[in-house]
Amino acid sequence: MSNSKFIGLLKECGAIKFGKFVLTSGAVSDYYIDIKLASTNPEILKEIAKRMSKYADGYDVIAGMELGAVPLAVALSLETRIPFVIVRKEKKGHGTGNLIEGASVNRKKVLIVEDVTTSGGSVLKTIDILRRAGAVLDRVIVVVDRESGAEEKIEKSGLEFVPLIKVSEILKNG
Amino acid sequence: MSNSKFIGLLKECGAIKFGKFVLTSGAVSDYYIDIKLASTNPEILKEIAKRMSKYADGYDVIAGMELGAVPLAVALSLETRIPFVIVRKEKKGHGTGNLIEGASVNRKKVLIVEDVTTSGGSVLKTIDILRRAGAVLDRVIVVVDRESGAEEKIEKSGLEFVPLIKVSEILKNG
Repeated sequence: MSNSKFIGLLKECGAIKFGKFVLTSGAVSDYYIDIKLASTNPEILKEIAKRMSKYADGYDVIAGMELGAVPLAVALSLETRIPFVIVRKEKKGHGTGNLIEGASVNRKKVLIVEDVTTSGGSVLKTIDILRRAGAVLDRVIVVVDRESGAEEKIEKSGLEFVPLIKVSEILKNG
Repeated sequence: MSNSKFIGLLKECGAIKFGKFVLTSGAVSDYYIDIKLASTNPEILKEIAKRMSKYADGYDVIAGMELGAVPLAVALSLETRIPFVIVRKEKKGHGTGNLIEGASVNRKKVLIVEDVTTSGGSVLKTIDILRRAGAVLDRVIVVVDRESGAEEKIEKSGLEFVPLIKVSEILKNG
């Protein structure tokens, strides 16, 4: 599937909308991305997993932060037969639970997947949690990068940054 | 795959442990179930999805509550090509977000999946949220039922309850 056809699918399911949108930060944006409308559709999710699988050779574990990246981690795991873990934003209940759900990542080569990156803050948190647990990290794959700082921050952390789609490509096709 | 082989897989990956365990409620149990150790393993997750797919004919949408049921909903969606939604325990951020992530469930025939049921409280909450959103419900599938009240409560709500494995079968095979 070509990139423009893939972007077409994202628009068709409502995951990418054009117009005037007020973001949580108060800033106004010309477009809005809700990748969950894409990742809950099995045809599109399967296409995302296929695209990500090209970058998944040689990894022991796939990791995705709750909640948006979980469907991506599951689909990529089923596509590649590599197990996955879920990274929690905060500890469950009274703080006694694990931040990482699934098998141990200690000394494992872990591939991080994410739905959307903007400034990259959420991915940096994921990197920090996984490194503290002993994971070996070298790559992050994201479905859509909003090109607002994530690439620089992630590469500064020593990881390769692989966006399947950049927002400039979406706007070009808009 | 036979039930006893399936139970063997659950034990092998550490999802079912025997011993003395103190539960969150303070009660002591002879066994402990952490289904996430099974659902993050792609071979076992695929087997769970295959077993659930036998009960998924004719549904428009699959629904799973965060976080435990999300891998199950994703895997069953990829197996059956039926879209899924994620039901949140509480509203995101300042309470402005949706309790249901994904496409609309209004007037749709929705199949609920769950990882473990004990008293059934979590499933009843899922039923309530989906019904308020207009979903048509008639069935819940759970991977492991601890046989502690869930069946009665769910059937009283008018839904059929389908456990893939009952804890008495696990203890018999222990």
